[in-house]
Amino acid sequence: MSLTESVLAGNRLALARLLTQVENDSPEGRRALAELFPHTGRAHLIGITGAPGTGKSSLVNQLALHYRKGTDRKVAIVAVDPSSPFTGGAVLGDRVRMRDLSGDSGIFIRSMAARGSLGGIAKKTAALVQVFDAAGYEIIIIETVGAGQSEVDVARLAHTTVVVEAPGLGDEIQAIKAGILEIADVLVINKADRPGVENTERALRSTLELAHPARRVFRHHGQTMSVSAPAIDSTTWIPPINKTVATEGKGIAAVIASIAKHVEHLRQSGDWAARDRARLESEMETLLREALLDRFFASVQQVKYEETIEKVINRNISPYEAVKYLLNGKQV
Amino acid sequence: MSLTESVLAGNRLALARLLTQVENDSPEGRRALAELFPHTGRAHLIGITGAPGTGKSSLVNQLALHYRKGTDRKVAIVAVDPSSPFTGGAVLGDRVRMRDLSGDSGIFIRSMAARGSLGGIAKKTAALVQVFDAAGYEIIIIETVGAGQSEVDVARLAHTTVVVEAPGLGDEIQAIKAGILEIADVLVINKADRPGVENTERALRSTLELAHPARRVFRHHGQTMSVSAPAIDSTTWIPPINKTVATEGKGIAAVIASIAKHVEHLRQSGDWAARDRARLESEMETLLREALLDRFFASVQQVKYEETIEKVINRNISPYEAVKYLLNGKQV
Repeated sequence: MSLTESVLAGNRLALARLLTQVENDSPEGRRALAELFPHTGRAHLIGITGAPGTGKSSLVNQLALHYRKGTDRKVAIVAVDPSSPFTGGAVLGDRVRMRDLSGDSGIFIRSMAARGSLGGIAKKTAALVQVFDAAGYEIIIIETVGAGQSEVDVARLAHTTVVVEAPGLGDEIQAIKAGILEIADVLVINKADRPGVENTERALRSTLELAHPARRVFRHHGQTMSVSAPAIDSTTWIPPINKTVATEGKGIAAVIASIAKHVEHLRQSGDWAARDRARLESEMETLLREALLDRFFASVQQVKYEETIEKVINRNISPYEAVKYLLNGKQV
Repeated sequence: MSLTESVLAGNRLALARLLTQVENDSPEGRRALAELFPHTGRAHLIGITGAPGTGKSSLVNQLALHYRKGTDRKVAIVAVDPSSPFTGGAVLGDRVRMRDLSGDSGIFIRSMAARGSLGGIAKKTAALVQVFDAAGYEIIIIETVGAGQSEVDVARLAHTTVVVEAPGLGDEIQAIKAGILEIADVLVINKADRPGVENTERALRSTLELAHPARRVFRHHGQTMSVSAPAIDSTTWIPPINKTVATEGKGIAAVIASIAKHVEHLRQSGDWAARDRARLESEMETLLREALLDRFFASVQQVKYEETIEKVINRNISPYEAVKYLLNGKQV
């Protein structure tokens, strides 16, 4: 039985091995991805993002446990940690979580210390998600930390994006999330037993009102060469705000219900298919960029490339002119 | 007189116009960049990064004022705000700062709301920095907010990277910066009049000890096709820790002194040239990727591209196979 077949048959050890192959972008991993791809497209991808200090990981654990209760759907967690590009800090968090969720063979957790470029992170996340999808994990939670472009990129992968806030993180931190709010499908105020929860909710509501119109524009104008379906009228979805105390398991069922409602909305509005398409287009473009660069470096003479770089460093030609020269052979 | 000539002659209005052209990546902007490039390479690029709440912007303002005092060097501030990819929130901050620093024609502030991909941000920042460099701004401060890959990417542009911390931002926020610390050349604990400053300093010192060996490895293993100078023994630089209260102007002179010492170290060790080279190589690679993709889209038949995407969406072929087909015409 091949590794791919073992994964499709539900073998956890084979799954772990394959995830590593795929994360390392090995030839075997690439081949497996191609073999698994026809089996994908069934999972519900849930992105969960929020600043450090919001208790996002506890919330993710609770959601995973609730999804498992009273359902036989398997749950995968892909924890992306772009905060730790060097030291692989995700591993420790992984062990802590394993303790909480261990003993349930229907839950699989994979942490990814985000080495390399951000485009690389989004690409690897997409690949891991595909493996889980093919392996029959119907709920895939993609957890990202921080605030900024990384969340936006990872959110593009998800059908449903949950943004986690918490009271009392300070005005500046609230402000930073104005952009993040625009990608939210479901909002959660975690640590809702803390003082200031009313202020946080009020701030969220007013920011939501500002953010909402722009959100749909963003969704339909990705960076890909767009052949997307025509804009769909999905303006009726207003992100609900849920309050939770994840460490005590409070409010989790309501979040699950909000997510389920969002899925229903996606299905009815046609947005499910639109997001699926946008995600695959974006993935194709990323692969295309990489393949084009590989092909270029395979064809260019090393000596010519190095000489051109020297000219740039000596300020004889600009980087832009250098690229034109390398691509067109035009003398500069 | 052309726009480029006006900029080289020190015309502020022309500079503002050109920065807009360059930020919009207009043909005129590209041409100007090529014309200006031979005039670059004189500026000291200082990256300043830190989480929201550290008072980073006040620190940047104070540094700019101090650099202006008793020197005729012009100072540019490029404020990159990846937290606000949609709403262009940087503009407000811009006005607030203008008020603090106004009246000095030797200071120029440019905010950049970070729309588009992160690669795009780094590229645009690099372009703006080149314009300022050519225009005779000898000190260029690149300010980034947040925590994560975006800071790392922008830090790659700088000769000297200053990481700003503050007491009492919480353990989780401290942890997130373990990766960021590894790119620090100078550390600043701002808001040093607040309780907990000793704890922050202790935490920084112990993290520094862990982070330090890895830092040099990172510096010499960028993502570019490396033709860099051989690894230079620069292990003697230990990032100094400075304490400031930026809102009261306290401790600023010591930060300036630390930065000056770092420049001296860079010059003596050869790292100045190495960083310059790494930056230009990385910039060339970014332009190369973009040009390759443009060339591909100009040559591929729209119909063929769309048909291939349909096959991917219907799970007939994987994205990877689709890219192979588009590039090699191999039937799948």
